[in-house]
Amino acid sequence: MKLLLINPNISDSVSELIRAEAVRSASPGTEIEVLTAPLGVAYIETRFEAMIGAYATAQLAAEHHAAHDAVVVAAFGDPGLNALREVLPCPVTGLTEAALASACLLGQRFSIVAISQRIRAWYRETVSAYGLDSRLASIRGLDEPLADIGNVQGNQGERLVALAERCVDEDGADVIVLAGAPLAGLARSLRGRLPVPAVDGVSSAVRHAETLVALQPGRAQRGSFAPPPQKPNAGLSPAVQALLRQAR
Amino acid sequence: MKLLLINPNISDSVSELIRAEAVRSASPGTEIEVLTAPLGVAYIETRFEAMIGAYATAQLAAEHHAAHDAVVVAAFGDPGLNALREVLPCPVTGLTEAALASACLLGQRFSIVAISQRIRAWYRETVSAYGLDSRLASIRGLDEPLADIGNVQGNQGERLVALAERCVDEDGADVIVLAGAPLAGLARSLRGRLPVPAVDGVSSAVRHAETLVALQPGRAQRGSFAPPPQKPNAGLSPAVQALLRQAR
Amino acid sequence: MKLLLINPNISDSVSELIRAEAVRSASPGTEIEVLTAPLGVAYIETRFEAMIGAYATAQLAAEHHAAHDAVVVAAFGDPGLNALREVLPCPVTGLTEAALASACLLGQRFSIVAISQRIRAWYRETVSAYGLDSRLASIRGLDEPLADIGNVQGNQGERLVALAERCVDEDGADVIVLAGAPLAGLARSLRGRLPVPAVDGVSSAVRHAETLVALQPGRAQRGSFAPPPQKPNAGLSPAVQALLRQAR
Amino acid sequence: MKLLLINPNISDSVSELIRAEAVRSASPGTEIEVLTAPLGVAYIETRFEAMIGAYATAQLAAEHHAAHDAVVVAAFGDPGLNALREVLPCPVTGLTEAALASACLLGQRFSIVAISQRIRAWYRETVSAYGLDSRLASIRGLDEPLADIGNVQGNQGERLVALAERCVDEDGADVIVLAGAPLAGLARSLRGRLPVPAVDGVSSAVRHAETLVALQPGRAQRGSFAPPPQKPNAGLSPAVQALLRQAR
Amino acid sequence: MKLLLINPNISDSVSELIRAEAVRSASPGTEIEVLTAPLGVAYIETRFEAMIGAYATAQLAAEHHAAHDAVVVAAFGDPGLNALREVLPCPVTGLTEAALASACLLGQRFSIVAISQRIRAWYRETVSAYGLDSRLASIRGLDEPLADIGNVQGNQGERLVALAERCVDEDGADVIVLAGAPLAGLARSLRGRLPVPAVDGVSSAVRHAETLVALQPGRAQRGSFAPPPQKPNAGLSPAVQALLRQAR
Amino acid sequence: MKLLLINPNISDSVSELIRAEAVRSASPGTEIEVLTAPLGVAYIETRFEAMIGAYATAQLAAEHHAAHDAVVVAAFGDPGLNALREVLPCPVTGLTEAALASACLLGQRFSIVAISQRIRAWYRETVSAYGLDSRLASIRGLDEPLADIGNVQGNQGERLVALAERCVDEDGADVIVLAGAPLAGLARSLRGRLPVPAVDGVSSAVRHAETLVALQPGRAQRGSFAPPPQKPNAGLSPAVQALLRQAR
Repeated sequence: MKLLLINPNISDSVSELIRAEAVRSASPGTEIEVLTAPLGVAYIETRFEAMIGAYATAQLAAEHHAAHDAVVVAAFGDPGLNALREVLPCPVTGLTEAALASACLLGQRFSIVAISQRIRAWYRETVSAYGLDSRLASIRGLDEPLADIGNVQGNQGERLVALAERCVDEDGADVIVLAGAPLAGLARSLRGRLPVPAVDGVSSAVRHAETLVALQPGRAQRGSFAPPPQKPNAGLSPAVQALLRQAR
Repeated sequence: MKLLLINPNISDSVSELIRAEAVRSASPGTEIEVLTAPLGVAYIETRFEAMIGAYATAQLAAEHHAAHDAVVVAAFGDPGLNALREVLPCPVTGLTEAALASACLLGQRFSIVAISQRIRAWYRETVSAYGLDSRLASIRGLDEPLADIGNVQGNQGERLVALAERCVDEDGADVIVLAGAPLAGLARSLRGRLPVPAVDGVSSAVRHAETLVALQPGRAQRGSFAPPPQKPNAGLSPAVQALLRQAR
Repeated sequence: MKLLLINPNISDSVSELIRAEAVRSASPGTEIEVLTAPLGVAYIETRFEAMIGAYATAQLAAEHHAAHDAVVVAAFGDPGLNALREVLPCPVTGLTEAALASACLLGQRFSIVAISQRIRAWYRETVSAYGLDSRLASIRGLDEPLADIGNVQGNQGERLVALAERCVDEDGADVIVLAGAPLAGLARSLRGRLPVPAVDGVSSAVRHAETLVALQPGRAQRGSFAPPPQKPNAGLSPAVQALLRQAR
Repeated sequence: MKLLLINPNISDSVSELIRAEAVRSASPGTEIEVLTAPLGVAYIETRFEAMIGAYATAQLAAEHHAAHDAVVVAAFGDPGLNALREVLPCPVTGLTEAALASACLLGQRFSIVAISQRIRAWYRETVSAYGLDSRLASIRGLDEPLADIGNVQGNQGERLVALAERCVDEDGADVIVLAGAPLAGLARSLRGRLPVPAVDGVSSAVRHAETLVALQPGRAQRGSFAPPPQKPNAGLSPAVQALLRQAR
Repeated sequence: MKLLLINPNISDSVSELIRAEAVRSASPGTEIEVLTAPLGVAYIETRFEAMIGAYATAQLAAEHHAAHDAVVVAAFGDPGLNALREVLPCPVTGLTEAALASACLLGQRFSIVAISQRIRAWYRETVSAYGLDSRLASIRGLDEPLADIGNVQGNQGERLVALAERCVDEDGADVIVLAGAPLAGLARSLRGRLPVPAVDGVSSAVRHAETLVALQPGRAQRGSFAPPPQKPNAGLSPAVQALLRQAR
Repeated sequence: MKLLLINPNISDSVSELIRAEAVRSASPGTEIEVLTAPLGVAYIETRFEAMIGAYATAQLAAEHHAAHDAVVVAAFGDPGLNALREVLPCPVTGLTEAALASACLLGQRFSIVAISQRIRAWYRETVSAYGLDSRLASIRGLDEPLADIGNVQGNQGERLVALAERCVDEDGADVIVLAGAPLAGLARSLRGRLPVPAVDGVSSAVRHAETLVALQPGRAQRGSFAPPPQKPNAGLSPAVQALLRQAR
C-alpha cells in the first residue's frame, strides 16, 4: 500500500517530522511519500493561510495521487480535505479528522493542545465543521512566538505537557490531541507521561488511511461527494482539469 | 464610495447579472466595479469548486482592493470570505452572509431556493458555519441540469416560484432567500408575487457593505481576524505577499 | 425616508442619547423621530420589565407607525419586536437584532458589553432566541449600581473599555457589541481605542432599517409573520384594534 | 391550598373548560380560582397576541396573587410566565411548561397537537425557549378555521386523534401533548384511545403547582429570578407598582 | 397510593436517608417502600457502576413492582430508568429526571451540586441525554474523598453551601439541584440558607410519581416505550422473563 | 494481536456472522475470538434489552479480556461500551462507535439502515450520545418482523438496498452505515451496488481496534475514564470484583 502525505506548508523541516512519524506508524508493507507545498507559508495558523494551503494541496494531489492508494492532508485543520474528497478516486483523510476519530474511540471528551494562541480559532472552527463541539473539552495553545517551527517539541515540550495537564484537571478532557504537524511524534515520545490517552494526527491519519483502503467502502457516485457536475472551466492546471473531467 | 464585487466564477454573463443588480441596489454616490475570476469554473456547486474560487477571489482582492472602500465576494457560499476578512484592511462581505443577515431582519426562519440539487450540501454547510442552523427552514433546488447559467431566471422562473411556495407552506419559511449569483435581481422582478419577503445576495451585499463602511467599526488588531502573524512564505503573488506583510 | 424609534423606557435622557446617535448615523435625507414610552421603568434589565416595555412599545407603534417608513424598537433585548413584525405594515427592527447583524458581518464571534450584571440573563436569552448562541463569545457587565442612566458613558467609560479588552483576550471575541440604549454612541466615541471592531445598536438599527426600506422585500401574506387571523378582541386601544383588523 | 389560574384570553367559555379540568385534577383540599383577561383576544395564536396576553396576565396576577399559594398562566405558550416568576412571591407555572414537564417524565420525545396551523410557530419558539428542541418530535395542527373556540373538542375530536396517531407513527413521538386551553380535559376524555401517553396543560399545571407549593424550594434572592432592581417607573397600576417595590 | 423506591446501591444507610425524605415529602395516604440493591457498589460515581446499578434495579423492579402504583429509581443518574419505562406497566421516574423537572419549573438555568469530582462526568452525560444542556449552568462537586457515604450532609454541609453560592454567583444558576441520594433531605434542612430555590431528587421524585399516577396518562402501546417485541431469551430471572412476556 | 469480540445477544447464528466478517477484515496476524452472551435476548432493539446486554457483556469481558489485546462490544448500540472503557486495561470499542468513525472519515453525513422500525429510537439515542446528531442524515429500518435473525441479509437484501437508495436520494446521506450485527458482512457483499460508500460495524471495529492497539495511546489515570474510585461492593462476580480492585 502506498500513502501520499501532502504538507500544505512550505517547511521541509516539518515534512521531515511528518515523514518520520508516518514511517514509525505505518503497518508493514505500507510505503510513505511526503510532499511539501511549493507555495504557501511556513505554518498555518489562520483561515487565510489555510485557504492558500488548500489550493496548494489540491495541486499536488491532482498531480501525484494516481500512484498512491490514499492521500493524507498533513496539516491540522485539514485544508481542502472535503474538497479533495469530491474529486479524488481514492480515500483521503487529514490530520485533524483522523486525530479526532482516534480521540472519539478513546473517550468522551478531548482537548486540543496547540502550538500558538492564534491557531485556536481555526481549530475551533474545524472541530465545529466536523460536528464535534459537544466532545471538545477545550483548546489550549502555547503563549510565545515560535522561534523554530521544526523544533517546537524540543523547545516547548514541558510547556506542552503542562497545558495537557490543565486540559485534564481544569477542562475535563478524557483524551489529549497534540495538534499540528510540528508536533508529529510527540504523543509517542510522551508515552506514559500524560494522565490520559494522547493521540497525534500523523499516526492516526496513516492508520486510518490504511483502514479506509482495506475496507474498500466504495466511492460516491451520487450525493455531495460524487465528482462535481461537468461544466466549463479556465485557468486550471492540466492535472486539476483531469480531476474535473472524470465521469461519475 | 467604491465597492469591488468579485465573481469567483469565470462566467462573464453572471458578472453582468451581478453588476446590473448591484447598480440598481446601490445608494446614490456608490460606484460599483465587478471583476470576473480568471481561473475556476462556470458556476460553483461543490466544495472543490468553492476552494478554487476562494483562491481566485483572493488573488483579485489582493490586487484590486486598494482602490475601493469595501469588497464583496459575489458567489453564494462566500468562498474565501472569512480568509479575506483577516487580511483586507477594508470591510468585506459575501452574498450568503449578506442575504442571511437581511433574512434574519425580516423573519425567524428562512428557506433557500437554489439553482441545483447538488448545490444544497454546500449551502447547508455554509449556513452551519454561520451558526444559523436553527433559523434555516429548508433548502430546495431545481431538479434539472442548467442549460445556460446566464439565463436561469428566464428559463426556470416559474419553477423557482413554485419552490418558494413550497418552502413557505411545507417547510415553515418566513422569508425566502433566492440564492446564487445567477439569480441576482430575481427577488426584485418577483416583487409582489411571493407570499413572504424575499431577498437576494447581491442587493443585500451592496447595502450591507455600504453600512459597514458608514459605521466605521474599526479593524481587528487582536483576535482571530487580526492580520496573520508574519512568517516565511513562498510562491505567492506580490499582491498576496503585500497583504501578509501588513503590520498589525 | 422617515424612521420612528421607540424607546420602551420612560427615560427622556436616554431618548436623547438615542436621537443624537440616530441622527449622526442616518443617511442624507432620512428623518428621525424618537418617542419615549409613557409607561414602564427607567431602564430594562429583566424579563418583567421587558414585558411591560413590549406592551408600551406596541401602543406607540400602533398609534404612530403610519407616518413612517420603518420602526425601530430602541432598547437592547428588542422587547416586542417579533410581535410588532406580525402586525406592522412596514419594516421593523430592534437594537439587539440590528447590532448582532452588524457584528456577524464583521467577525465570527462577538461579545456583549452591558451596563449591569443583572441584565446579562435577559441578553443571553435574547441571543438564544435569535439562534446565535454559537457566535456569542461572552456577555460581561458593569458591577456597580448605575447612579445616572443618562450618563453611564461618562461615569463608566474606562470600565467599559476594560470589559471589552477582557472579552477579546479572555473570551475570544472578534467583535464587541456595546449594548443598551444608554451606551448609544459609545462605539463612535471609542473609535480607535478598542482592539477589534465595535458596534452599537442605534446606528446599526438606523442603517439596517434604511436597508430594509430600500430593498423592498415585500410583506408576509402567509407564514408566521402574516397578520394574525381575525377574531374577537376586547379592551384594546383603537390603534391596536386597527392593526388587528388589517386584511392580509 | 389555593391556586389562581389566569386565562390570558377574553373567552369565558375557555375559562370554563380550564376551571372544569382544574377542579377534576386538583388534590383534595386544593381550591381553584380562574380569572379571565379583561383585555386581549379570543385565543392566542401569534406572538403579538401573546404579548398582549402577557400584559393582561400580569395585571391580574399583580392584583390577585396575594390570596393564593401559586399562580398558573393558563394559556399554552405561557405568555409572561418567566416575567411573573421574577416578581411574584409564590410559585408560578404555565400550561406549556407544565405539560412538557409531564411529557418528559413519560418518554423521550413528545409531539404537540394544536388547534391551528398558525399557532405552530409560536409553540415551536416556546419549546425552543425551554431548551427542549431535542425532545420535540413534531407539532401538528388542525387545518380548518375554528368555528367555536369553546367547542373545539366536540367539533374536531376525531381529527385531533388522527393527528396524534400520525405524530406517533410518522414522527416518532413517545408522548402526545394536547395543547391549548381549548383542549383542556381532552386527554382525560380520550383516555385509552391513544397509542401513547397523553398529557394536557391544565391538569399538569395544577398538579405541578401543588408540588411546587409542597416542596417549598425557597424564593430567588439572587440570580436572574430575584425581584428586579428598584428604579423609577411610571404609568403602572398600583398593584404592579407594589410588585416592583418588594425588597429582595 | 404505594410507591416503590429502589436504591441501586448497596448502602443501607443511604436507603435510610431516602426513606426518611420520601416519607416527609409524600402526600397524605401515600405509602413508601424502599429496597436496597443486593449487588453493586456503595455509591455510584461512574458509568460502570451505573451499569451494574441498572441491572440490579431491574431485578428488584421486576420482582416487586406489581404491588405498587409507581417505581422510583433512587440514585442520581437514573440508572436503567428509560429501560424500565419500556417494560413496567406503571409510571417510573428517577432522582435526576425528577429533580431536573422541578428545577425547570423554578427557573431557566440550574446548577448541580454533587458529592465528588469524579461523579460530574456521569451527571453531565445524564443531563445531556435528557436534552437539557442549554439549561445547565454548571456542575460542581466536593473535592475530598468521602469518609462516610451515609453522613455526607453532616461532614460536608458547609462546603456544599459554599459550592451552591458559587454556582449562583459565578455560573449564573437560577436554581440549585442538590444531587445524589446521599444528599436526600439536604434541600429541606438548608431551607432559607441558599440564595435561590433548591431542589433534591427524592422529594421531587416522590411528588412527581404521585402526579403521574394521578394524571393517568396511559401506557405506550406503540412507539419506543411500548413493551419490546417478543423474542427468544435466556438466562433471565423469572420476574424479568415475565416482564418481557407482556402482551402489548 | 488477539481481539475479543463479545456478542451481547444469545444468538449463536449472529455470532457466526460476526466471526466470519471479523476474520475477513482482520490484518494478517490478528486472531479473532467471538463469545456469545449466556444471558439476554435474541437481538437487541430496545433500551431494556440493551441494558441486559451491557451487563452480560461486562461479565464476559471481565472474565476473558486478560488474554486479549483489545475488546469489541459486538452489537450495534454498543451496550456497556463506555462503562467497560473505565475498567478494562486494554482498548475497547463497539460496532456503532467504530462504524460511525469510519463513516465520518468518508463523508459529511451518514444514514443508518437498520433491521427494524423499533430499533431506530435506540440507534438515534446512541448517535446523540456520541454527539453526532449533526452528521446523521436519517435512520431507516425494515418494516416487517424478522423471521430469522441469522438470515436477514438473505431474506431482506433487496429491501435493504432500496432503503439505502432512499437515504441517499431523499435524506442527503453521503455514506451508508449498515447497522446491526445481523448485517455483518453485507457492506462487503453489496460492494459496487450502492451509490455511496457503505460501512459496517464489525469490519470497522476490528480495524479500529487494531489501530488503537498499534497507536498505544496510553490508559487514563485521571479523568472520567480512569478506573472508578475503590469502595465497598457486594454480589459481584470475582472477575468483576477484580476489575474494580485495580490500582489506578
